[in-house]
Amino acid sequence: MTDRYTIGVDLGGTNLRVAAYAAGNSLLETISLPTRVEKGPDRVMDDMCAAIRELEKRHADGREFAGIGVGTPGPLELPEGKLHSLPNFPGWDGYPMLASLEGRLGQRVHLESDANVAALAEYHLGSGRSYGAASLCMLTLGTGVGNGIILNGHIWDGNNGMGGEAGHNTVYPEGIHCPCGNRGCLEQYASATALIHAAKIRYTGKRDPVPTSAAEIANLAREGDQDALEIFDGAGRALGISLATLINTLNLPLYVVGGGVAGAWDLFETAMMEEVHSRSYVFRFTEPSEEERRQRSPRKTSIVHAELGSEAGILGACLLPLVANGVAKSLGTIHSCAAPA
Amino acid sequence: MTDRYTIGVDLGGTNLRVAAYAAGNSLLETISLPTRVEKGPDRVMDDMCAAIRELEKRHADGREFAGIGVGTPGPLELPEGKLHSLPNFPGWDGYPMLASLEGRLGQRVHLESDANVAALAEYHLGSGRSYGAASLCMLTLGTGVGNGIILNGHIWDGNNGMGGEAGHNTVYPEGIHCPCGNRGCLEQYASATALIHAAKIRYTGKRDPVPTSAAEIANLAREGDQDALEIFDGAGRALGISLATLINTLNLPLYVVGGGVAGAWDLFETAMMEEVHSRSYVFRFTEPSEEERRQRSPRKTSIVHAELGSEAGILGACLLPLVANGVAKSLGTIHSCAAPA
Repeated sequence: MTDRYTIGVDLGGTNLRVAAYAAGNSLLETISLPTRVEKGPDRVMDDMCAAIRELEKRHADGREFAGIGVGTPGPLELPEGKLHSLPNFPGWDGYPMLASLEGRLGQRVHLESDANVAALAEYHLGSGRSYGAASLCMLTLGTGVGNGIILNGHIWDGNNGMGGEAGHNTVYPEGIHCPCGNRGCLEQYASATALIHAAKIRYTGKRDPVPTSAAEIANLAREGDQDALEIFDGAGRALGISLATLINTLNLPLYVVGGGVAGAWDLFETAMMEEVHSRSYVFRFTEPSEEERRQRSPRKTSIVHAELGSEAGILGACLLPLVANGVAKSLGTIHSCAAPA
Repeated sequence: MTDRYTIGVDLGGTNLRVAAYAAGNSLLETISLPTRVEKGPDRVMDDMCAAIRELEKRHADGREFAGIGVGTPGPLELPEGKLHSLPNFPGWDGYPMLASLEGRLGQRVHLESDANVAALAEYHLGSGRSYGAASLCMLTLGTGVGNGIILNGHIWDGNNGMGGEAGHNTVYPEGIHCPCGNRGCLEQYASATALIHAAKIRYTGKRDPVPTSAAEIANLAREGDQDALEIFDGAGRALGISLATLINTLNLPLYVVGGGVAGAWDLFETAMMEEVHSRSYVFRFTEPSEEERRQRSPRKTSIVHAELGSEAGILGACLLPLVANGVAKSLGTIHSCAAPA
């Protein structure tokens, strides 16, 4: 399998990353470009396709090409491959991204939301592999809160490509307004944006300068700052309430929390687990013992920090064509995928 | 297929119903007995198995026996087939129901929670068939709020048989205490028990007699009683908040509301749909047009009243062995079941 390679794309609001990946092995090369959002989607697709062609040229020698995978901010409608009103991409609403890419490249492209490809990478190469879990649900705490659900080895796209949008699940019905039109979404409590907003409210006129990143707030919390500790406690409670709902609904063996904010795991874990414990009886019935926790039992419910870090998006995009073509099943990293019982 | 038959069991807190079912056709005969909960689980299993043997004896002639399916109140742990602290079955906690039944009958028994079998029946014989939906999520509003999820034609049992326990999803984090240990569960707002509890609070000292069933409260609401209207409005809001979460998480084509309280659909639909609309952007992106609504488009998201009524439980139990054995795929009532995309 080492003589096959894929190309993966991680489209972000700031950076556009395109990588070549040796199947079952490692990233061969990554091209990183600024995402020229303001130039419009067609120009960004041009940049993306130029980088893809460049990597194809450089890595084709002696290797068999196995396809292209792209992770994009959502909401993404599938199978059409059409974008819907991306928060940080003004003017991209309704853009037919899949048709645009396949037209330019003259070949099939595997397109998924960024949170879904991150979950796919975590499943095959991260905690999913460590736990031998057949299914998992991942929350990515970044600018927003992304969500990807893998059921028996397959991304759960749902009926329209929009399965796994739990970042907009209601935590507090009368809570903070969200640009999505709802109030009290998880994203308004557990994203980096939410933490920074909470810090601004708490620290303005009290501390100068006001912290402007989740990492700065985490540093304050670790120094014992009460406001910062309460900000992470609040994020943990919202996460716990949401996770309890996901556990009661899906009863999966593994829930993974990733993204930048998850680096403050030690600061929100206690509150998160308290809420999960009191709110999910499915969790209480399936909670691992200390021994089962050590053994990473896939018969129990585990809630863990993501293993892959910021590479999850690009790795997942590279895996997409392998999984879609069934090649991934022959990689050592793939679990047995039973039919839904 | 008309010469095959199954036997299904619907175990309730009050009644134990056992039926013979001609595959792909109709119920042949139903035996209804009181559930002697107070005599303990072994005695109830004896009653159940005696009725099963009786029906086997009466309907075996000229028909091929295709298996036994049982729907039980949950939480039920699978594949072990073990019960966990059923609210209306004191002393049944930990009872190994599957082993007990298979030991008595000397053959395989297909066991599922009552809400899961109701969803299975609705999928194959009710709204799932009408809409041509590949997947559905059903909420059954009865004494509690049951939940069953069918993904691509299969009951989603989850990792431990406890997939689909959305009746205990948190709607209001600081809300009404639930016997499950959580606060603000959907069940505390949208079950018949919840409506009766709300009526008691509102009407005591104000109306004599205080209504003691969901149907009586519905009658008052239809006469224009403001308290009764508000009770159903509250149930609709809780349902809408929960449905929005399920839609954002699963993105299925069909959400079905059944059980006795669903008979008051006209009284809670407006509030429910308002909440779904404002809280689920996945719904707003996939809402059917008037034309698509008429055509029951399975590409859009529909929220509908269950079609089967109180027979769903017993029918679903009768279907269980057919689905498990793959026979159901050859029935005219089964949709194509693609692998999860």
